[in-house]
Amino acid sequence: DGDALTPPRIDSRREVARSRLFTVEALELTFSNGATRSFERLKSGGHGAVMIVAMPDPDHVLLIREYAAGPEQYVLTLPKGLIDPGEDPVTAANRELMEECGFGAHDIEPLAELSLAPNYMDHRMNVMLARDLYEKRLPGDEPEPLVVERHRLDELPALLAREDFHEARAIAALFMARERLLAGEELHSPDWW
Amino acid sequence: DGDALTPPRIDSRREVARSRLFTVEALELTFSNGATRSFERLKSGGHGAVMIVAMPDPDHVLLIREYAAGPEQYVLTLPKGLIDPGEDPVTAANRELMEECGFGAHDIEPLAELSLAPNYMDHRMNVMLARDLYEKRLPGDEPEPLVVERHRLDELPALLAREDFHEARAIAALFMARERLLAGEELHSPDWW
Repeated sequence: DGDALTPPRIDSRREVARSRLFTVEALELTFSNGATRSFERLKSGGHGAVMIVAMPDPDHVLLIREYAAGPEQYVLTLPKGLIDPGEDPVTAANRELMEECGFGAHDIEPLAELSLAPNYMDHRMNVMLARDLYEKRLPGDEPEPLVVERHRLDELPALLAREDFHEARAIAALFMARERLLAGEELHSPDWW
Repeated sequence: DGDALTPPRIDSRREVARSRLFTVEALELTFSNGATRSFERLKSGGHGAVMIVAMPDPDHVLLIREYAAGPEQYVLTLPKGLIDPGEDPVTAANRELMEECGFGAHDIEPLAELSLAPNYMDHRMNVMLARDLYEKRLPGDEPEPLVVERHRLDELPALLAREDFHEARAIAALFMARERLLAGEELHSPDWW
C-alpha cells in the first residue's frame, strides 16, 4: 500500500506534567523534510485494558450504566477495565465481567485492538467477545453497583440514537461483534453449503 | 429505560496538573449511597472537534496516513481536526477536508457525536458524512504532506485487519456511514416500493 514513510526523528522526550492518573510527555520531532514540531502525548502506564462484548444468548449483549466524570452523567457502555499486573487479556476480561456484570464466560475470543487517540496517546484496548456465560460475581471497586442491561445486537441503530450511548470504542466493538457473528453465520449456515 | 440514577455530588474540583495541551482536574465525589471517590479527568479546552467520512464517489472513502506520536508510527485514519473559534462543525469539517485531503464538499451532514473515554474526559467528536466533493486545497499546519488514500467502504473488514488502522472513532465512523448509506439505499431503492 504505497511507499513506507520515513518517520520523524525524536530529538528529545521529557515529562512536563504529572498527576495521580496522568503523565504528559513532550516530544521534540524533526520530520524527514526538516520540519520540526513539539508534540505532547499522554504516557500510558499500566498493562493495557480490556473491553468486553458479552452475550448471554445469541441475540443480546450486556451493557452497563455507570457514572462518567467527563460529561458528569450516567452513560451506557460496555464493561471494561484495566489489566492487572501478570494477567493476560482473557483473564482480565473474565474478571471484569464477573465484577461489573456478575457473569463469567467459558468462551472468550479477541475481536480487535482499538486505539483511543493515537495522535495524543498510546492507549490500546483489547476488545473481547465473550459467550457461553455463567453466573458468577466478584466484588469490584465501583463506588455504587453498576446497572446491567440486556440489549439486542440487531437493534444497534436504536442504541446509536440514544443520548447516553456515545463512547466510540463501545460503538466500534458492537459493530465488529455483529460483523463477526454475521460472518460466522454465513460460514456455518446449512444454506450456505 | 429504567429509573433515573441519582448522580454523585461533586464536593470539589481543582486543577492538579497542566501542560501546553492538557489540563488535569481532580474531582471529589460523594455518591448517593454515601461512597466517596477521587476522580481525575482531562479538561476539554477549545470548541470541539470534527472527523470527516468523505466520499469522492458512492463506493469510496478518503483515508489519511499521518504520523501519530502515541504509538510513534504512521497510522491510517480519517481526516479530522479542531473546530476554530466561531466556526460551526460543518464549516470546520469542510476546512479540514480542504487542508488534509485537497477537497471541499457540497453536501455535509452530521453522522454522530462520539465520545473518547467518558470516564476520564469530556471530549466529543462531531462525525460528518461529506459527499459531492470538489477539488480545493487549503494550506494546513501539518509538518509534512499527508498521504491521502481511497478505500472501498464495502472492504471495511479488510481495513480492520490492517495493523495501522485501529483508531476507535474512525472505525465507529466508517461503520455508521455504511449503515447510513445502506439505510438510504433501502429507502430509495425502487425494489423497496
